[in-house]
Amino acid sequence: MKDFPRNESEIIAQIQRFGRSSGGAAARIGIGDDCAVLHAPAAGCELLATTDQVIETKHFLRETHPAQAVGSKVITRGLSDIAAMGGRPTWFLLSLQLPDWTFGEWLEQFLQGMFDKIDELQLSNFQLVGGDLAAAESFSAHVSVTGEARSGEALLRSGASPGDGLWVSGQLGGSALGFDLLASGAKDGPALARHLYPHPRLELGEELRRRGATAAMDLSDGLSTDLARMAEASGVEARVDGHLLPLFDGASREQGLHGGEDYELLFCAPADFDSTGLDVTAIGEMRAGSGVWLTDEGRALDAKGFDHFR
Amino acid sequence: MKDFPRNESEIIAQIQRFGRSSGGAAARIGIGDDCAVLHAPAAGCELLATTDQVIETKHFLRETHPAQAVGSKVITRGLSDIAAMGGRPTWFLLSLQLPDWTFGEWLEQFLQGMFDKIDELQLSNFQLVGGDLAAAESFSAHVSVTGEARSGEALLRSGASPGDGLWVSGQLGGSALGFDLLASGAKDGPALARHLYPHPRLELGEELRRRGATAAMDLSDGLSTDLARMAEASGVEARVDGHLLPLFDGASREQGLHGGEDYELLFCAPADFDSTGLDVTAIGEMRAGSGVWLTDEGRALDAKGFDHFR
Repeated sequence: MKDFPRNESEIIAQIQRFGRSSGGAAARIGIGDDCAVLHAPAAGCELLATTDQVIETKHFLRETHPAQAVGSKVITRGLSDIAAMGGRPTWFLLSLQLPDWTFGEWLEQFLQGMFDKIDELQLSNFQLVGGDLAAAESFSAHVSVTGEARSGEALLRSGASPGDGLWVSGQLGGSALGFDLLASGAKDGPALARHLYPHPRLELGEELRRRGATAAMDLSDGLSTDLARMAEASGVEARVDGHLLPLFDGASREQGLHGGEDYELLFCAPADFDSTGLDVTAIGEMRAGSGVWLTDEGRALDAKGFDHFR
Repeated sequence: MKDFPRNESEIIAQIQRFGRSSGGAAARIGIGDDCAVLHAPAAGCELLATTDQVIETKHFLRETHPAQAVGSKVITRGLSDIAAMGGRPTWFLLSLQLPDWTFGEWLEQFLQGMFDKIDELQLSNFQLVGGDLAAAESFSAHVSVTGEARSGEALLRSGASPGDGLWVSGQLGGSALGFDLLASGAKDGPALARHLYPHPRLELGEELRRRGATAAMDLSDGLSTDLARMAEASGVEARVDGHLLPLFDGASREQGLHGGEDYELLFCAPADFDSTGLDVTAIGEMRAGSGVWLTDEGRALDAKGFDHFR
């Protein structure tokens, strides 16, 4: 059995071993001082910043979710927000609440999952630059991820106009289906992989920005909830044709409309948008007005996605 | 009784009401999109970044610590790290785990304490630019604070050289004394105020940088622990004369040597350092070697400050 750390500086050293593998272009001074000291963004760029958390019992269960999947999801949540802005990730901070049972193998696997995801995305300059650790009753991880985008060009939720087409990337409902399968004891399969190891759409986000998308956000809480947010931010009505929804293989229409954690991109673009070669599907359009309308059923689409406090 | 929020968007609106009061120089797009969009640092400056957490039962007790003090301490922990680098704070992210009992008045007071501290420090351009919320069994707050400093000029832990004088700001042991008094039922007094509402030494940090300090860090885990870290980072031996320690009124020598959460600055400076007008005290010097030596007792000073995992 490996010799695992039992005090704060040894846990920091354990994290640093992974951190070093992620390159070091962002920081002049990384982990180990009161603050990281970071290079300014490239000339002509603005900084992007987001924070996200993953909490035991709320976002995952020890019994069903491998530690590697938890680590992968923590960093994916942050990276997906950078993708939704059409940005490039630069560095991140990690704040951990660690109960006794996480020391050693579980934490090692958690970190492995996080840095495997970073490697898979070939983010060789994306760097862990600092963090904070505390002993706690239950596990949670809080990540602050930054990125950069050309000044004035980041994709906002508020940029949609009446007449814009409404699009989504990939397929919807796979994570919700995977979660149900996991709860009923399934051990593998595409939907399970989708739930456990979602993929932030970084390359697509940058490409959408280049091709003139007008608005974007990531689908973390479910289409019905997130689309209502985009319609409100843009001051328009969103109209979705349910028949056009690209459902994940085996997912129900309800899972496609309301299921969370797909981490696909929801975006708007002018009518002449060129989608050649992109894994995206037109699902409706924006009009003058407010709210979300499900055109094939002729009714308003209520937000039934995830709300932590409902 | 006031009407307090019960769903995620209403809690976000509650936070935004406070956030707006803190100005808006840092962000082009603040709370409400997938990411904040932030101006690059001023020309010739590097970015500073740190993350810190405050957890129920580990860092405070509901029974003894007012919500305002918790909010004040969360932001002070981050700002104190910026102070230790000699930097100016620019923006922050806030990630909250919220149990039911925090909804309403407690959260309102928590936010009030946080933004009162920001106002007290006259940080009119320091801005809350984003966050994340989740329902949870117990409360924690995770803050990521950024700042900026002239390129190459941030004060590091690793900058001390043999021959440098060793200094601390303010008085030590007040927070440890206050914590003991609080636990024994005290309701007010200077030590209690020191424990509940510590003060990040932002102005002093910038002034130390201007006056040529060689190394600095903030005292969060206790002098004996933090000084050992500085000596190790700088590759020198630290020699402290215990008789010179500026003890907080009523604090014991042990509280001064090992007590945490004073948030004073520990720093090194050349022998000709001009301390005129600064609230600082020379307590020893750095020499070639390693470790920490308590000269008035002629023994090594063991690190007995705070370690979450010991």
